[in-house]
Amino acid sequence: MSDPTFARPTLEEVAARAGVSRATVSRVVNGSEGVRAPLAERVRAAVDELGYVPNQAARTLVTRRNGAVAVVVAEPETRFFADPFFAQQVRGISKELTAHDNQLVLLLTEGTADYERVGRYLAGGHVDGALIFSLHDDNSLPEMARKAGVATVIGGRPGWSDSETGPTTLYVDCDNRGGARDAVRHLLGLGRRRIAHIAGPLDQTASIDRLDGFRDVLPGTDPALIAEGDFTPEGGARAMTVLLERVPDLDAVFAASDVMASGALRVLRRRGLRVPEDVALVGFDDIVSVAEWTDPPLTTIRQDIEEMGRMMARLLLRALEPAGRPEAPVVLAPIVTPTHLVVRASA
Amino acid sequence: MSDPTFARPTLEEVAARAGVSRATVSRVVNGSEGVRAPLAERVRAAVDELGYVPNQAARTLVTRRNGAVAVVVAEPETRFFADPFFAQQVRGISKELTAHDNQLVLLLTEGTADYERVGRYLAGGHVDGALIFSLHDDNSLPEMARKAGVATVIGGRPGWSDSETGPTTLYVDCDNRGGARDAVRHLLGLGRRRIAHIAGPLDQTASIDRLDGFRDVLPGTDPALIAEGDFTPEGGARAMTVLLERVPDLDAVFAASDVMASGALRVLRRRGLRVPEDVALVGFDDIVSVAEWTDPPLTTIRQDIEEMGRMMARLLLRALEPAGRPEAPVVLAPIVTPTHLVVRASA
Repeated sequence: MSDPTFARPTLEEVAARAGVSRATVSRVVNGSEGVRAPLAERVRAAVDELGYVPNQAARTLVTRRNGAVAVVVAEPETRFFADPFFAQQVRGISKELTAHDNQLVLLLTEGTADYERVGRYLAGGHVDGALIFSLHDDNSLPEMARKAGVATVIGGRPGWSDSETGPTTLYVDCDNRGGARDAVRHLLGLGRRRIAHIAGPLDQTASIDRLDGFRDVLPGTDPALIAEGDFTPEGGARAMTVLLERVPDLDAVFAASDVMASGALRVLRRRGLRVPEDVALVGFDDIVSVAEWTDPPLTTIRQDIEEMGRMMARLLLRALEPAGRPEAPVVLAPIVTPTHLVVRASA
Repeated sequence: MSDPTFARPTLEEVAARAGVSRATVSRVVNGSEGVRAPLAERVRAAVDELGYVPNQAARTLVTRRNGAVAVVVAEPETRFFADPFFAQQVRGISKELTAHDNQLVLLLTEGTADYERVGRYLAGGHVDGALIFSLHDDNSLPEMARKAGVATVIGGRPGWSDSETGPTTLYVDCDNRGGARDAVRHLLGLGRRRIAHIAGPLDQTASIDRLDGFRDVLPGTDPALIAEGDFTPEGGARAMTVLLERVPDLDAVFAASDVMASGALRVLRRRGLRVPEDVALVGFDDIVSVAEWTDPPLTTIRQDIEEMGRMMARLLLRALEPAGRPEAPVVLAPIVTPTHLVVRASA
């Protein structure tokens, strides 16, 4: 078996092949004038034959722009692929970056132990900016991006306040708290009185904000009616089981995600409880592949996940534009998008 | 709203803050000796305060190693996220790369129009190698990787022969043809006589090899019993519909993927045909989230997709090792893994 050769051809090899000096090759490759046509032709032929690619790393040192944006999800890749939320957000990001001829560079990890390596890659001059999402209490990823000097937009409101960190943190989020209020008011409007909440992991602001929205409408709620999940179907099922043990006659559940609601639904069915007759159920997100395919389909709070992905990418690309174009001043600020109730059969 | 500043601190700024020369900063940052301790201390403090990161792009020029490997899937990102095959292969790659402290860099595209941009990124010195999979007839991605001088391992046997391209192309594949033969022989052993085949897209070698395996066992098969799908559930359903129109009394189907088999199953059920009583069904892949969850569960040909991902990563990392370590000579060759029949209820 012959040994594949992967050595990248060098400027010197091109020069030798074309029978010219390094300087001549460099001038032709960099598009400078002043090389006679027949010489330039020979250089171009040698470049083609050898498959020579001008060293972009050297160029990056000058331009400091790669046309590439990193996407980092603060979850192990198993979670990333299991949860349709992420694919939908990446879809919006991909469309927007592609429309602006920027390469989407998805940096996957097995867990937090890999964040330092991600930080090194961000610092390596390989990308111009980073979109980071699903932050938990650990803020090491945004901190590393900041130290690496790459522009950053966060998906979801970060857990720190800007007064601590200095400059405005850019992020895109939906109105989690307002959406949760709408969900609970809808259940109240249906005459439900023992309304439980399956919260997301409480080290994430989206979960905290949705719980706060629930409490805005039902301030005196018995803590027994609140259980923490983890944004997975299994976590939703576990939380539902706990809630039914604590409050067997509950008549409604607001789950902080459709995925958790789908897990809760399985437990309710297994117990012989009818949805919505015995227990009304409302989710959050409106992930079509989940909310429309459960039986019964889920009433939920819609956030436009794909569009939020586009917004993140757009905000980042704007942050990367050279400052000081007076004819089009760039306004950079966090974006919070509205949510709205989508009524289906489950409530 | 204050304007976030993303400018990366420069060596000059560190020098100014520490009150030393550029050269002194450079010596401290690069770990050289010969800087007096109090001065070195002041430089380190300035580095910390400003969040200075030594320019890795400059280092890459010297070492030519990034500790990063690109994964490129020759499918639009929508297909990538919809098909669990890819997540499983990426899982194996991620585990192996992480074990060797290499960063997985997933380059997503919207379609073939974006391949040139991917080629630019590969050529940009941002990754040391590339794992490319799901190639169709278009070979522009491997060709670009070759021109970019990055080591490459292909997932699946490439459609070209090495005599044309010179050096050995590295790839990892399973025994598609042998697996297909096992599937068809199993159906024959059950007494089935009108066995149809739902092929994958015939611009991919995996599809061609599985069809060849089918024909090895049933050489004279009526072409009406063969329909082309596209490795999606919808494609499987469409092919099944066509086959039933052409040969209403077929008694078995070998689908070239579990995902297509799941689509075929839906059509069979809608027509009131019982599986396996009326029509026996065999898939390919043994993707657990599909094959075990259909009703009835799928008999299928298992390939170890995650392990094949690991093998691809391992082969690439070996190809990246410096040549000429006589104590451990590196053998680089394509790998073809065995498949085996997994019998469940559908056949």
